[in-house]
This record gives sequence, C-alpha cells and structure tokens, in this order.
Amino acid sequence: MSYYPKLVEELIEKIVKLPGIGPKSAERIVNYILEENQEDIVALAENLINLKREVKLCQRCFNLSDNELCSICSDSKREDVLCVVEEVKDLVLIEKSGFRGQYHVLCGKITPLEKKPYGHLKISQLVERLFKENIREVIIATNPTPEGEFTALYLSDILKEQGIKHSRIACGIPLGAEIEYVDSATLKKSIDGRKEL
Amino acid sequence: MSYYPKLVEELIEKIVKLPGIGPKSAERIVNYILEENQEDIVALAENLINLKREVKLCQRCFNLSDNELCSICSDSKREDVLCVVEEVKDLVLIEKSGFRGQYHVLCGKITPLEKKPYGHLKISQLVERLFKENIREVIIATNPTPEGEFTALYLSDILKEQGIKHSRIACGIPLGAEIEYVDSATLKKSIDGRKEL
Repeated sequence: MSYYPKLVEELIEKIVKLPGIGPKSAERIVNYILEENQEDIVALAENLINLKREVKLCQRCFNLSDNELCSICSDSKREDVLCVVEEVKDLVLIEKSGFRGQYHVLCGKITPLEKKPYGHLKISQLVERLFKENIREVIIATNPTPEGEFTALYLSDILKEQGIKHSRIACGIPLGAEIEYVDSATLKKSIDGRKEL
Repeated sequence: MSYYPKLVEELIEKIVKLPGIGPKSAERIVNYILEENQEDIVALAENLINLKREVKLCQRCFNLSDNELCSICSDSKREDVLCVVEEVKDLVLIEKSGFRGQYHVLCGKITPLEKKPYGHLKISQLVERLFKENIREVIIATNPTPEGEFTALYLSDILKEQGIKHSRIACGIPLGAEIEYVDSATLKKSIDGRKEL
C-alpha cells in the first residue's frame, strides 16, 4: 500500500538503494527535495546525468578522470613511486595525506572465499605499466582486511618474479588512539612492526 | 584543492547538502552512482525533476498530492475525525498506524522563542475547514516537543472559542520500552495520564 503520491514513492525506492541510506533517511531527503527550489534540483539532476556521461577512468592508472589521463598522470612532477590501491576513494585519501607519487587503482580486490574471477582487476595493466614506465618502487596499499592482504600477497609474488622493489603500508595503532581500546590483532601488528629508536 | 574531477566534486557538494549525509557518505554515493548503469541514473534524475514539477500540496489538507485533492481527501469512506499534524511525514506515520480519519497538515509549528512569524502555517485554513466541513472531533497530533506543545495549546484555544470538541494525542512510555531507560519527563507524563482499569 502506498501512502505517498506515486512519484514520491518511486523516488524513495530509488534513493533507498543508495549506499548508507535507509527508508527514514530517504523520506527525509525527498521531503528536503520537495522544499528546495526548482533550479537547485534541476542542477542536481543534470549533474547526475553529466557525471555518468563525462567522467571515465584514466587510461593509465584507472583513477576517475574527465580526460584520457587523470590530473595526477598528467602531472610531470610526480615521484617515480607507484602506490597500488583497491579503489579511487583510497587514492583520494592517500593523496590528501600528502603522498606525491603515482597511483594504480585495481578497481577491486581478490576475494578468495567467494571464488569470484578477478579478471576485471587491473593487475595485467599494472604489470604492463611496470615494463613501460620508470618506477623505482611499488607501495601496496590495499586494505589490511583478509581480502586486501590476500591481494597484497598475490601482487607481491608477481612483483618478486619481475624483480621490482615493493613494500606494504604499515599497520599499527592509529594516531590519537589509546592502547586500551585497540584490538589485539592490531596490537600484535604494531609490536611486530616496531621501529628501533 | 580538488582531488576528484570537477563534475564529481560538484556532485559531492550537492549531495552533502541533503539531510543526514556527511562528506564520506556523499563520496560513497557518488562512487555508487559511477558504478550504476546509465539508465538507472537517468531514471533517478528524471524522477527528481518530475517530482518537483508534479507533486504539489492538497488544496484541502496540505498533504502531498499529484491532484487538486490528495488520495485521503478524495476517499469518501473516511471518518469525520480530523487529525492535525505538523508535517506530511507525521501524517504518513499516523496513517500507517491504522488511523482512518482525515488530516490537516500545518506545514510547520509555532516557534515562540525564535519569534518567527507563523502566517505560513495552515491554521486559518484549518478554521475555515471546521466551518465548512462536518468534523466531529479534532485530534491535535503535533510533536510532544516544547514547540509542538505550544502549537497544540494555541490551536486548543482557537478550537475552544469555536466550541469544537478536540483532544491531544497521549504521551507516555513507548511500547516495548523499559521503565529503567525512560526519561523522567516522559515518566511523569505517563503517570499523570494513567488510565483506570
């Protein structure tokens, strides 16, 4: 049974599908849209359509881009260190943290338990880049989750074979955290990875 | 400094303005949209535009409607009890709870501390309806917040003057809650409003 006009119900159904949005939030968003002025909502709708039409993946590193090459790959001042990440959002966070090397987005991770094929991952493209480009070191920055670790090991094997210097991002206690509240697996990683002073 | 292509940044900025969505959620939503297929996103965009164009307020009760009168006002089987609410979302929740009378949406509440004018509230339209329509009882279902209570008192004064029977929704402990976790103001309301068995 529907309590809202049909168009409202339909929009709520579509908005509920977005990640992190439940039915209550979707209702609130639709109510907000009904109160917003017409131009802003038309601009939002146009932005949605243009986004899908114009934003694509960088031909080299698979970052989001509105050109063949993304702004990072077009930047000649980048260091010859290549940071491999699972998703574009990881790239953005590492970039925000001040890293000024280059990137390679895998567009996913290997999920050994689900036994899904991983041909869509940009691994062969990574190997190809390492042949063609002058990369001094590869930093593997997949997530420290079981799947991210598996992917890191897989990449490490390939890079070892190719004789390419590579490293894994450090795991440990986040800055500002208290040891009391850190889980024991992280604590173990933190002690195993201790640095001499 | 922008880390995403311009269109992506613009869309994130627009999505962050929606209620209940922070910068991280907005990024996740944009990533989801980039992965969704083109038709679904075009449908979402069109739905947004059509919503603003076609959904209006019911001329009688100010519920959302795609016609002059909403589906509830067009329903001749409704009881002659009128439930007054602050917002359409309250109407929907009361309707879902099984109430089968009629409604009147105030489109807001009186905010005495902010000293805002409240001419936009549909109070005169409510009084007009009570003259014209055959209403047996008015149930004031504004929120039990200070502003909602103030609005309820204000309406009650008007209804008293007009000699119209009216009531206020009951406040008390929500079903399934434990007394241990209920705040003392609610507990007081619950004891004051006790019912003889």
